[in-house]
Amino acid sequence: MVEKEPDFQISEERNEWDMERIHVLAERLLPIYADVASGQMDDPKSQRYLNELIGILHELHPADMATVLESLPQQERVMVWRLAEPDEDGEVLLEVSDVVRETLIESMGQQELLAAIEDLDADELAELAPDLPKEVVHEVLESLNAEERAQVVSALSYEEDEVGNLMDFEQVSIRADVTCEVVLRYLRRFESLPDHTDKIFVVDDDDILQGVLPIRTLLVSDPEEWVHDVMSTDVVRFRPEDNIEEAASAFERYDLVTAPVVDANKKLIGRITVDEMLDVIREESEADLLNMAGLKEEEDLFAPVIDSFKNRWMWLVINLFTAFVASRVIGVFENSIAQIVALAALMPIVAGIGGNSGNQTTTMIVRSLAMGQLNLSQWGRLLRKELAVALMNGLIWGSAMGAVAYWLYGSMGIGLVMVAAMTLNLLLAATMGVLIPVVMERFGRDPAVGSSVLITAVTDSGGFLIFLGLATVFLL
Amino acid sequence: MVEKEPDFQISEERNEWDMERIHVLAERLLPIYADVASGQMDDPKSQRYLNELIGILHELHPADMATVLESLPQQERVMVWRLAEPDEDGEVLLEVSDVVRETLIESMGQQELLAAIEDLDADELAELAPDLPKEVVHEVLESLNAEERAQVVSALSYEEDEVGNLMDFEQVSIRADVTCEVVLRYLRRFESLPDHTDKIFVVDDDDILQGVLPIRTLLVSDPEEWVHDVMSTDVVRFRPEDNIEEAASAFERYDLVTAPVVDANKKLIGRITVDEMLDVIREESEADLLNMAGLKEEEDLFAPVIDSFKNRWMWLVINLFTAFVASRVIGVFENSIAQIVALAALMPIVAGIGGNSGNQTTTMIVRSLAMGQLNLSQWGRLLRKELAVALMNGLIWGSAMGAVAYWLYGSMGIGLVMVAAMTLNLLLAATMGVLIPVVMERFGRDPAVGSSVLITAVTDSGGFLIFLGLATVFLL
Repeated sequence: MVEKEPDFQISEERNEWDMERIHVLAERLLPIYADVASGQMDDPKSQRYLNELIGILHELHPADMATVLESLPQQERVMVWRLAEPDEDGEVLLEVSDVVRETLIESMGQQELLAAIEDLDADELAELAPDLPKEVVHEVLESLNAEERAQVVSALSYEEDEVGNLMDFEQVSIRADVTCEVVLRYLRRFESLPDHTDKIFVVDDDDILQGVLPIRTLLVSDPEEWVHDVMSTDVVRFRPEDNIEEAASAFERYDLVTAPVVDANKKLIGRITVDEMLDVIREESEADLLNMAGLKEEEDLFAPVIDSFKNRWMWLVINLFTAFVASRVIGVFENSIAQIVALAALMPIVAGIGGNSGNQTTTMIVRSLAMGQLNLSQWGRLLRKELAVALMNGLIWGSAMGAVAYWLYGSMGIGLVMVAAMTLNLLLAATMGVLIPVVMERFGRDPAVGSSVLITAVTDSGGFLIFLGLATVFLL
Repeated sequence: MVEKEPDFQISEERNEWDMERIHVLAERLLPIYADVASGQMDDPKSQRYLNELIGILHELHPADMATVLESLPQQERVMVWRLAEPDEDGEVLLEVSDVVRETLIESMGQQELLAAIEDLDADELAELAPDLPKEVVHEVLESLNAEERAQVVSALSYEEDEVGNLMDFEQVSIRADVTCEVVLRYLRRFESLPDHTDKIFVVDDDDILQGVLPIRTLLVSDPEEWVHDVMSTDVVRFRPEDNIEEAASAFERYDLVTAPVVDANKKLIGRITVDEMLDVIREESEADLLNMAGLKEEEDLFAPVIDSFKNRWMWLVINLFTAFVASRVIGVFENSIAQIVALAALMPIVAGIGGNSGNQTTTMIVRSLAMGQLNLSQWGRLLRKELAVALMNGLIWGSAMGAVAYWLYGSMGIGLVMVAAMTLNLLLAATMGVLIPVVMERFGRDPAVGSSVLITAVTDSGGFLIFLGLATVFLL
């Protein structure tokens, strides 16, 4: 056998080299982009660059092409996109992030778009549809047969966080009253089996799900055996209205590759696959990270300044507002600060440790809630524990900073107020760190969104209030 | 066919009900735990509770059992653990988090541990080994045959972030010079195929990987066809030293279910599966979240206070130190604050917006670096863009807060200093927000760890310095 080199290869070095080379070539070719577009290229050196770039691009897997496009500034991105192999356009559009997808679709004509998406499956069309021009969606729906059209419409009818939105319709199903031999013969008539097929769905005449026949079982079974004797009825199945993150967590728990989607009557209507669940898990945790940092959504690195501004201004304003409140708290004590100016220097320490410690508590709780490891009824026990940790932290780090304050300012009073204020603010942080996510969860809100901002707001204003209040009472 | 109800079912309601009931029962039974342990139970009501609890526990899938154990306080956890079906002990130990695993293993005797782990595969033993008592590891290694022992030792020789640490040895391999018919007959001789088998590895006489035969291809191929004619040589393969997060991202890109692991000579030594990759992706993003919040690692919700303290003190101290530095910066300007006490109230606003905005920039860049979408050579272009966003934010929000300050304190000077200080601190935040992760990445450090603390430290101290410095120069 002649050893063929793989078309693509998981070698990070190779990918990175390609990536850098693509960037270099794209930058060189951009100034003569008009010529590139018209296919005329007088300069032989540019022609060589162009050939090299096209060569690299044509060897890329759609997923890698998507990464390349994400990494390029917008003009280069459009140029590279137009040079890429048109066959895989649809696949690439599915892989890129929403923001990049928009810029790519904008650069394409109606005919190009139609050509790009004509080979996609119903579920993939449904995924792209919201980003496509209406005429294109209309035209592509026209070209489908009735069954496919119904599938696209069905997929479009579910919310983004519902299983129905991510299911596909490529399942292979069989009856229970045949032998494994018959199943094997039936499968052989397919030109190819759907991606990820690890089990065949067993249904009755009305398409009601009876069980599944794992391929692993089929392969080791005696061909004479009946499907109903070897199939498994122990099926993790989903409803199209199920929450997609809960489905992903079921895939994780039960190590699934595919799972059937059924309606209220257990009629088989589609399936979901592990590759979609990987994306769900990745996106879920990314959304948490972005939220914690105060970004509304994923951002195109090279988006116009105004787009980045729009993505970020809301959290900045919320933070400005809470900072303003904290500032007014300080304002109340301006008289005290005027008399003991050291208070101004020490107060950020008290506020800061409260914010950090409260965020530690909240993050831990948000995470446990997301993993289903925390029952809301346990909040009392948790609060007691967090208060104990806060007391310990307060006495240790409060005393340390109290000693530092005493050493700096030579006032025992300031030192003691520091100890007391840090301890009290840590206790406040622990209380709010437990209560904020627990209350949000109880009222059906996502505790990952906004918990961090809220806790910081409370510990900032609270910290200033406690510290300056104690100082005013005891030191003036 | 009799319709059997599935043994477990993806129904969140059901799970939650079970969970609450387990909590109630465990709490009731805990006071009489000694009797439970000895099997004697005089009180018939308690006996009923006990039976109910055991009934629920025995129906749980190991993954759900793991979730239940994670959710219980330590005493109840140990009790429930001892009541659980011993057959699945090993599986459950694999599913729970490290911290919970420790408490469970501590509660088990040597014989129990040996019984729990005797049925595990080599890769699973290697996963548990670091948490097990030395004698137990020794004894279990003794009980293995030479090949299995070599596999355990090999898996243990890789770092936690290397592919070798997560590979298993259950691959099915065949030669290229046989027909599909022969392969099907060969597979039928297995009692069962390894989990997740979606492809069969094709090797030569020296176990050198030649290609893979996807089961999907095998099933649709003519039985007369030769393996070398239908196999795919387009193989995404890994080396045991490859980074596990990069492998997970390759699984995501190329929608893999399993992939071969080969040594430097392309000799097949094992495989990795998508279920492990799901865990890697989940853990990777969790680690980022925990890091951002300043938690060293995942924490047992009901850990003793001292354990939580240990997990959290380090970041608190680092933050205290940076807060102390910021406090000393303010200390330098005590004289200015004594003269214009409004400065004390306004300075946290300047520092705060810098921190928030810098964290937005850093998070976006850390994320793009992790996804391979950002080439370090582009940092200059990125910096220019971020500076533009910062300038826009500074002029808009700076002017807004400047107006507020003017309105509050009636001083045009304070208002103008506010605008200038906020704009400058936002520019500082943008610069550091780009440079900190880029420099960390260039020096081979994980930019997700510590970026947030560093940026906040710079924007706090920098914000105070800029604002109080400008005020001192222009207002006094």
